[in-house]
Amino acid sequence: MGRIICCGLGPGDPDMMSVRADRTVRAAKHVAYFRKKGRPGQARRIVEGMLASDVTEYAMEYPVTTELAFDSPEYVQLLAGFYDEWAERLARLSRAVDVVVLCEGDPYFYGSFMHLHTRLQGRVEIEVIAGIPGMVGCWNGVGRPIALGDDVTTVLMGTLPEDELERRMRDSDALVIMKTGRNLAKVRGALAAAGRLDDAWLVERGTMPGERVVRLAEIDAADCPYFAIVLVHGKGRHLDAAE
Amino acid sequence: MGRIICCGLGPGDPDMMSVRADRTVRAAKHVAYFRKKGRPGQARRIVEGMLASDVTEYAMEYPVTTELAFDSPEYVQLLAGFYDEWAERLARLSRAVDVVVLCEGDPYFYGSFMHLHTRLQGRVEIEVIAGIPGMVGCWNGVGRPIALGDDVTTVLMGTLPEDELERRMRDSDALVIMKTGRNLAKVRGALAAAGRLDDAWLVERGTMPGERVVRLAEIDAADCPYFAIVLVHGKGRHLDAAE
Repeated sequence: MGRIICCGLGPGDPDMMSVRADRTVRAAKHVAYFRKKGRPGQARRIVEGMLASDVTEYAMEYPVTTELAFDSPEYVQLLAGFYDEWAERLARLSRAVDVVVLCEGDPYFYGSFMHLHTRLQGRVEIEVIAGIPGMVGCWNGVGRPIALGDDVTTVLMGTLPEDELERRMRDSDALVIMKTGRNLAKVRGALAAAGRLDDAWLVERGTMPGERVVRLAEIDAADCPYFAIVLVHGKGRHLDAAE
Repeated sequence: MGRIICCGLGPGDPDMMSVRADRTVRAAKHVAYFRKKGRPGQARRIVEGMLASDVTEYAMEYPVTTELAFDSPEYVQLLAGFYDEWAERLARLSRAVDVVVLCEGDPYFYGSFMHLHTRLQGRVEIEVIAGIPGMVGCWNGVGRPIALGDDVTTVLMGTLPEDELERRMRDSDALVIMKTGRNLAKVRGALAAAGRLDDAWLVERGTMPGERVVRLAEIDAADCPYFAIVLVHGKGRHLDAAE
């Protein structure tokens, strides 16, 4: 009996993988990873040069996405079928061998692996290796503490409605906004309305080649960054009191 | 000219250190770390067995804390003097050699290193090595995704007032509560008032020997855990929509 080992790869720089993840990736005989059709895949790119020469790779390619709206019932059904099928294949494979599933960041923190996890839990032995979340790599790029003292930190998805984003941006010390991409204009509008835009940073490709750290207010509205996270630093509530 | 290298050690298990942190710790000739007087210190304990035989250690011992209240002006002043003095010593030392400052978790996420960082920035070359935050090690111990889909995640300090804790606990999907310790009864009360107590987990010594993962409602009120974080998992808002 083998296992499914979900290996958190951290924010992107292979040097930021945990010692255990590094060892697991190098020893793997079977690795699986999600990717868009025709793309190398971000998780696969992180481990480039680390895989054994006799490794077998399983690219789990998302079903074609351009014809259907993301929130249409057809698309949701298509994706559920895709996860069902891969959960089945990995479960079957793991009867004989260990399968390492490569995951960006930390698998339990907004990771795509959860779609397999819910389908595999209880059926197969699963090990999850924690990783440095992508946001940690991003705030390290800015080079200042994201939160300190009694700061409240809130992690928001750019997919939320603009009024909810604005309300929560007003009500938190430190802010992390993920899933920006097509939602960046909305995120920017909510930050401006909450009076936080001038303190916001955008980090693109954190810890990876081509990393870009800029003030969000300074980038062109037509700029459409990849793998970008927006950050607003806390100022340290009650910081003078002893830690 | 040397540098100050602030090395994030991750949640506690040395295997969870980044490849870069592992290499940095093993190569260090001068290491500094905070600790309470008479204690080995949590950061120092993580690297036990990894330091070079000719390393020089600098234990930065917090001034005696029992005689003074944590929020008294005397204590705050004493602590500020302590950080000033160590910032001065490390700055002087780093003129000649590299000094590795050992930090639990991720240095930029509620880390004590910030007290030195603010005093050293601009005077000395500082490198910060990201680490897996303690909370990530803790939610890995529970073995379920902490947040998924469009969940809002809020990180709270147990030092905040009970009514503020309760309000924020009601208003977030996933919750992480740090600085529990003496605030645990208050945290518990706020979770109960917010209707979240039955979903709360307490993780003590996450990823370390003696790790304990329990439902918060099930522990004895007199139980006073060390290095404990309280977690409430998100349920995955809008999860059916495609990621």
